[in-house]
Amino acid sequence: VTAREFRRAAKKAAQILGRADKILILSHTAPDGDTIGAAYALCSALQKMGKKARTECGDILPAKYEYLFSKVDFPAFEPELVVAVDVASKNLIGDALSGYQDRVALCIDHHPSNTFYAGFTLLDPDAAATCELIYYLLGILNVKIDRYIAECIYTGVATDTGCFRFSNTTPTTLRVAAEMIERGADSATINKILFDTVSRERLRLETLALETLEYHFGGAVAIVCVSLEMCKTAGVTETDLEGLPSLPIKIEGVAAGVTIKEKEDGVMKISLRTTGAVNASQVCASLGGGGHARAAGCQVEGTMQEAREKILEELSKYLGKK
Amino acid sequence: VTAREFRRAAKKAAQILGRADKILILSHTAPDGDTIGAAYALCSALQKMGKKARTECGDILPAKYEYLFSKVDFPAFEPELVVAVDVASKNLIGDALSGYQDRVALCIDHHPSNTFYAGFTLLDPDAAATCELIYYLLGILNVKIDRYIAECIYTGVATDTGCFRFSNTTPTTLRVAAEMIERGADSATINKILFDTVSRERLRLETLALETLEYHFGGAVAIVCVSLEMCKTAGVTETDLEGLPSLPIKIEGVAAGVTIKEKEDGVMKISLRTTGAVNASQVCASLGGGGHARAAGCQVEGTMQEAREKILEELSKYLGKK
Repeated sequence: VTAREFRRAAKKAAQILGRADKILILSHTAPDGDTIGAAYALCSALQKMGKKARTECGDILPAKYEYLFSKVDFPAFEPELVVAVDVASKNLIGDALSGYQDRVALCIDHHPSNTFYAGFTLLDPDAAATCELIYYLLGILNVKIDRYIAECIYTGVATDTGCFRFSNTTPTTLRVAAEMIERGADSATINKILFDTVSRERLRLETLALETLEYHFGGAVAIVCVSLEMCKTAGVTETDLEGLPSLPIKIEGVAAGVTIKEKEDGVMKISLRTTGAVNASQVCASLGGGGHARAAGCQVEGTMQEAREKILEELSKYLGKK
Repeated sequence: VTAREFRRAAKKAAQILGRADKILILSHTAPDGDTIGAAYALCSALQKMGKKARTECGDILPAKYEYLFSKVDFPAFEPELVVAVDVASKNLIGDALSGYQDRVALCIDHHPSNTFYAGFTLLDPDAAATCELIYYLLGILNVKIDRYIAECIYTGVATDTGCFRFSNTTPTTLRVAAEMIERGADSATINKILFDTVSRERLRLETLALETLEYHFGGAVAIVCVSLEMCKTAGVTETDLEGLPSLPIKIEGVAAGVTIKEKEDGVMKISLRTTGAVNASQVCASLGGGGHARAAGCQVEGTMQEAREKILEELSKYLGKK
């Protein structure tokens, strides 16, 4: 999309929102800071415009986002307009809200993989976060960004860029964040909650996992294993496991970081992260999986040891001898 | 300083730089991304203005900043003007360069603790990084910021804010970073080097240290121990230990995070990090140390076990029973 096409589409999205009075906003399942921030920012803005608005999500919102979701009251109403934010495909609306899957009139999103399931889609695949689009829309709708909305939008842009570390961070992302701080967002507290807090259980699991760390191919490959037994000992939940596969690739000199997670007895999930040198998607495709050039995954049957041998065997085709 | 006083001081600093032809720029010992970024940005800018300029540091520059320090050539000359950047006091110039300690004509800094040892000091204690001041100065000096200078300045602001996570991050910090990306800084690669890379040795040490993790006061205090034996096993250098004391305070529910490091047989260095609930400086002062409200340290004699008991005893005065 050109900048002009995007501006025109944004005006149309603003019109759709402006015309409706009872608006339901949906977030995607396994909700993150961007889909929650976008939904609550938009909901609060529509309420400030005198409309009835509420948000729903097919999954329970993680407790760490309590500073956002505990601050808005939801009226009861039958929605006139259903909006989805940061939801790339209709199945991500989830089973619990499947009744809305074919009723989304407006989708606001930044995922290049968006399937255009909605009546109208405002998509900017160059935006780091859907919250950047919400910021832009609120400008058209002439809603003053107060401290609460600023914290919602800040949460979204910070979440999707790993606090401005990832390559999707653009000058626009940083300038939106700057303005949100000016409008009162307590960025330091939000950053501490999102990026500098680890649960006791997660840390225990990381310790156990790091004890299994092995290097191969002269240090170019690092492998970490996570068994069901370890998860039980550490007492982790699914949320505690988030981001674990990005650990081994952080090690200096490592070109391929592998995390093997026992899903159930005899079924292993392999997550592969690579630098530019190895195509993760290609490697995982050979084992029946897929993904992106630098982040991919696959599932194999057998023991942990067998999974390790399989992925090392595949990697050896790219890296030479172990 | 008011904004107007700062602008006037910046003009004077620009005049001092503008008048000189052979300029030496000093960084502080134990150099970090801000002092290196500021020195190399200013050096490159002065060279673009047709002047002779070079930088020096009393310590060897860490290898990870190679993308900055390998790209500038230094001519030999006897300096007419000595400038210090990000150097709060003259002893931080270091023993190796002590001959310059009383020759600093201009100091550009953001540390509130600056001792005003230089002929003229341009200080902005509200700036997150000295590189923000360099950015401002280059504007006055009318130097076009090219990709190299942009990477120097980006490195400084990112380093001193923990990649925009810390509370010192201001809207100005984020806008300077935004402009540096526009001017060509490869922020994603720099962020990966600075914030997403861990040495094998450091990771091994963290694993060993985490195995010693203990909770006290119902989880309000977390203690981690690092012995000389562990450092030897892991093969770490001093650089590998950087930031280790900020690990235990990241754990959910922890109000005081303690790291005890064996300095030599019978001498223990205690580092304390706290949330708002406990004054770290006060606790460490009782053990002969000091620091800030949320980050302080002290040194005690005895075994690791004795050090642990001493700090727990002090903390018990603030947190009640163990």
